[in-house]
Parts: sequence; structure tokens; C-alpha cells
Amino acid sequence: MARIALDAMGGDHAPAAPVAGALLALQELDAAHSIQLVGREEVVRAELDRQLAGEFASMRDAAAARISIVHADDVIEMTDKPSVAIRGKPKSSMVVGLRLQADGNAEAFVSAGNTGAQMAASTFILRLHDGITRPAISTLFPTVKNPLVVLDSGANVDCSAQELVSFARLGSVYAADILGRTNPSVGLLSIGEEAEKGNAVVKEAHQLLRAAEGINFQGNIEGRDLPMAASERGPIDVVVCDGFVGNVLLKFYESVAPMIFGILGKHGVTREQISGALSHLDYASVGGAPLLGVKGVSIICHGKSSPKAIKNAVLVAMKTVESNMSAHIGQALSRAAKSEDVS
Amino acid sequence: MARIALDAMGGDHAPAAPVAGALLALQELDAAHSIQLVGREEVVRAELDRQLAGEFASMRDAAAARISIVHADDVIEMTDKPSVAIRGKPKSSMVVGLRLQADGNAEAFVSAGNTGAQMAASTFILRLHDGITRPAISTLFPTVKNPLVVLDSGANVDCSAQELVSFARLGSVYAADILGRTNPSVGLLSIGEEAEKGNAVVKEAHQLLRAAEGINFQGNIEGRDLPMAASERGPIDVVVCDGFVGNVLLKFYESVAPMIFGILGKHGVTREQISGALSHLDYASVGGAPLLGVKGVSIICHGKSSPKAIKNAVLVAMKTVESNMSAHIGQALSRAAKSEDVS
Repeated sequence: MARIALDAMGGDHAPAAPVAGALLALQELDAAHSIQLVGREEVVRAELDRQLAGEFASMRDAAAARISIVHADDVIEMTDKPSVAIRGKPKSSMVVGLRLQADGNAEAFVSAGNTGAQMAASTFILRLHDGITRPAISTLFPTVKNPLVVLDSGANVDCSAQELVSFARLGSVYAADILGRTNPSVGLLSIGEEAEKGNAVVKEAHQLLRAAEGINFQGNIEGRDLPMAASERGPIDVVVCDGFVGNVLLKFYESVAPMIFGILGKHGVTREQISGALSHLDYASVGGAPLLGVKGVSIICHGKSSPKAIKNAVLVAMKTVESNMSAHIGQALSRAAKSEDVS
Repeated sequence: MARIALDAMGGDHAPAAPVAGALLALQELDAAHSIQLVGREEVVRAELDRQLAGEFASMRDAAAARISIVHADDVIEMTDKPSVAIRGKPKSSMVVGLRLQADGNAEAFVSAGNTGAQMAASTFILRLHDGITRPAISTLFPTVKNPLVVLDSGANVDCSAQELVSFARLGSVYAADILGRTNPSVGLLSIGEEAEKGNAVVKEAHQLLRAAEGINFQGNIEGRDLPMAASERGPIDVVVCDGFVGNVLLKFYESVAPMIFGILGKHGVTREQISGALSHLDYASVGGAPLLGVKGVSIICHGKSSPKAIKNAVLVAMKTVESNMSAHIGQALSRAAKSEDVS
């Protein structure tokens, strides 16, 4: 049994998208699981009633049994600074939603709201595993084969070599627990295969990763290898980079496919053919990214999340809870600290 | 009248591709211009004779009048370290070809050989403009509109904020002289529109660029803006980033389009439709990138360059010579140094 707290006020399409996402998720989750919609009670209640009177009429009984509303007076806006989450708005849906977990009343939190605020509030309320200085966000990059775990994708812009090693550990547990990869292989993003290629931090990280225990390090991976999810040495599951590079790449990737489809449209390719290919590249099918390194489960969704994306984020939250990912991350970091003490 | 020295031994398909590229270029260049093929005389002569006896039979008279062979004993291999160019192989086609320019016997040098060696040899033989610490390589990114000038794309991995400002000056002159852009607009690649977003170097560069005279700075540009060649503030001609980010992006871009076309092929899109769109994204149509910051003209081609790519690189070389780009760069840097002295 797991209880998912969902920020009903977070995202560009709140509260409609989170409420619809919760109802869609309910259709796929086992009956033992429940969802708490966190937000201004009268607003959330009205939206839920509206949807249950319309599109989701068949869900009335299920919603009555498994969806509850947890009131939160305030809302963190997209334009608020991250620190607002902690100091300025203790009664916001984000803080109230995360506190449910800290108080033992929920097992996970999901939000499409202000990402910086969610990171700050998650770090403050859930706290970090030992050995982690800041949480990381991983993104799944579509490839010709399986999606690639890329982290950090924007939470940490100036990273030390040690932080890149932490990302390798966090990403490996994520790939194993959420994506089911066995002994995930890790590549270090650089500008050449050779250990001596890269900027100063990457060159140092290469040596640390090579010496690190418990990481299936496969050497450097280049930009050209990402769409193949493989370097010359073989398949790669996890790609490690600083959050500046990761964020630039992610945003570029999100926009280059639409550009190419636009060009193709001028060459007689039909909308149906494009949408077929687009489904392979659909970010909404992933839904949410667990904030890695916190003690608990905090799932970050894109601000533009559709009901389908929110639904998938709730399913990711469930998988994160059921696989016990957070505990596994704590164990991996603790083993790493011990092996460093010995050596 | 301009004389282009072309490295006949450089690139994966040498000497066939450079020789064919020279003959293709001759068909498009004014009769006053000539090409010097630099390499082992007997090898280059045999290849030239072979092509003039076959595919290029109609070019015999033109080749006799306007193509000469400059002998060079040695070849810099793709696996050689850059320093080899200067110390180890003074009789290589690359060093001999660049010396022609230093000695007043050629106006430009073009090579598809070892890029690191070409940078080192160009810096050593042609020397750098005052105010430049290392040369930069700019790449043209295809977009929905006009190509975007992105620099640095791999020559400088750890950059200072001042170097990013230099890139803005170099890229602006390149965009004006070679691409014909008027008052080129410059964007700083970052992870958000706001001045306070980015890593430490980028945040400092933002302030320097904002204060710099002679640069049409339009603020930050994000990864998602690149395919549009525009930030929220308007169109962008030049994007500035360090060579690590630039190289990762460039290689990713080169491989993501083929991936998408591969996916589309599975959805019934025909080879003809794809090749129509591919022509829009064809890197061979650009051909070569001038090494920016050297006193003279050194055009860098991809190692895989086809005859068409080499031909286009020779045309870029001609444009670089005729527009007087190197002198304009010197003037721009000198004006910048004066305005800094004043302020």
C-alpha cells in the first residue's frame, strides 16, 4: 500500500491537469494505493467534482474511496525564488505535500510546480543521504534503443569531479530500480574517447570513476553516441555530466525533433507518419523524474505536464516507492564511503 | 587574384577527395584564382592525372593553367599529437602548406587533416591577433531559418569569461564577412534567460558582454532556442559557449538527425522525402570552418570530407580572403582593446 501526495496547484495547467492525472493514474494503480490531492480545498474539490461529473463519471466510486484532498492555503508560483519554498510559504501545497511524507502520512510526493522550489523544499524537509551535497535530476533521453539516463540535467551547474562520481552512483541505482537495467553501464560525457580528453573536471572525474568501486564505468561517451545509447565500448545506460551541459543538451533535444519534423512536413511527410515517430520521442510517456539523493520520494514533472504526463509521473512515484530506490541509494553511498575509508 | 593552398594528404579520403575537391572548386572559381595541391609530388600527380583522364577529362586545360603541386615529404597522421606539427614534421604537407602563406606565396590554407595539429601549426606559423590567447573554431548549425554561428566548438575546453567575449567578437566578424549578416546579434548559451542563470563563467561573461562595446549582445540563449536561431528577444546570428559544451552539442546534432530519420523510416517515410529534408541539414554544403583568431586564413574541414565538402571549403577560403576577414578581426580586437583602455 502506498499513498502518493500530488501537488494539485503545481504546473501550467493546474489544477485541471493534476486532477485529471490523478484520475487516470487511479485506473492503472492497484486498488491498495491512494492519492492525496494537495491544494486549496475548495478549488481542488470543485475541479474534482467537475471532472467526475463529466469525462471521469465512471470513476466516482473509485475516487471517493482512494482520492482524498489535503488542504494547503498557499501556492508557490513559478516565478517565486526557490528559498520562498522554505522560508516564505510554509503553508504552500508543495511544503504541505512534502511534510505528509516527513510525518509518515504519505510515501511519495509529485509536483509539476516550480522545480527550484521543489528541490529546495525536498532537500530541507526530506533531507539528503550521507555523502550527497545537493540532489540531482536525471532525465531520460529517447534513443534508437532504450532510453538513456542523463544526469545532472540542470540542478547543479558547477560540479566537482566528486559530484560527477555521485551522479554515477545515483544514476546507476535509478537505472536498476526504475528501468530494470542489470548492472547499469555508466559513460562520462566528454569530447573524445580518450581519458585525457575533456575539461579539467571531466578529466579528473574520469580517473575517479575508473578507480571507483560499485560503478560499471565504461569510459567516456561523446555527443554523437547519445542517440545510439552506446559508446565504442558497448551499450550505455547512464550518462554523467554537469547540470549546465545536461540542461543545454536536454532543451536542445526537446526542440530539435520538432524542427526536423517541421522540415519534413515541407517535403510531403504526413502528419500521421510524424506522429508515429513522435510517439517514440514523447516525453510525456516518461512523466516525471525522481529527485535523486533525497531521503524519500520527490518526483519532478515538467511545468507543461499534460494529464497523461502527470499520470505517468504518479506511476513513476509508485515504482520508486515499491522498488525501495531511496534506501538502495543510501546503501550504495554507504558502501562507497566504506570502500574509500579502506583504500 | 588569390592562391589557395590545399592539403592534398589531409583527411580520411586523401588524396582522392582533396584532388577531386580542387577540380570541382576550379569549375566555380573565377579564372584569376588558383589552387596549390600540397603533398608528396608523385602521389598527388598520379591522382590528379588519374582524375583528369577520367571523370574530370574536360578540366585538363584549366587544371594545367590553375592547379600546381607543391611537394611536401611528410604527412601528419590523424593519430599524431598536435605538437608533432610544429616540432616533429616540419616537411609535412600541413606545415609546408601554411608556410606558403607566411612566405607570401599563398593567401589561404585548407585541410581535412588532423584538426589539433592544424590549430597548433596555424597558431605557430600564422600567429595570433593581439588580444587572442588561442584560436577558436566556429561551426554552422542548421536551423529552421539561417545557419547559426556557434563557437567555440571544440578548440578551447576550459574558457574564461574574457575568452567567451573574444568568441563574440570573432564570431561577429565571421558572421558579417562570410555569411553577410548585418550587425550580427550575439547570444550567450546558458540554462535560462535571466542574467543570473548559468555556471560561474557564463554569469561573469554575461556581465562583460553586456558592458562590451562593438558587440550586439542579445542576452542568454537556451538549448531550446538553437533550432529557431532566436531567443525570446529576437533573431540570433552568433552563439557563444565554451568548447566543451560546443563540441558535445555539435556531435549530438550531427547524430540526432540520422536517428530521427531512422525512426521515420520505420513509419513509412520514404528515402526521397528524407533526403529532401537531409539536404537542409547537410554539413557538406558548408564544407569548412575558418580557424578564428589567426593572422591569415586556415580553413578546417571534417576528416570525413567528401569532394563536395572540400570544394565548398575552398570556396569558403576564397570568401574569407576576399572579404578580408582576418584584417577585420584584427581591427575589431584593436578597437575593443582601445575602448577598454578608455573605460
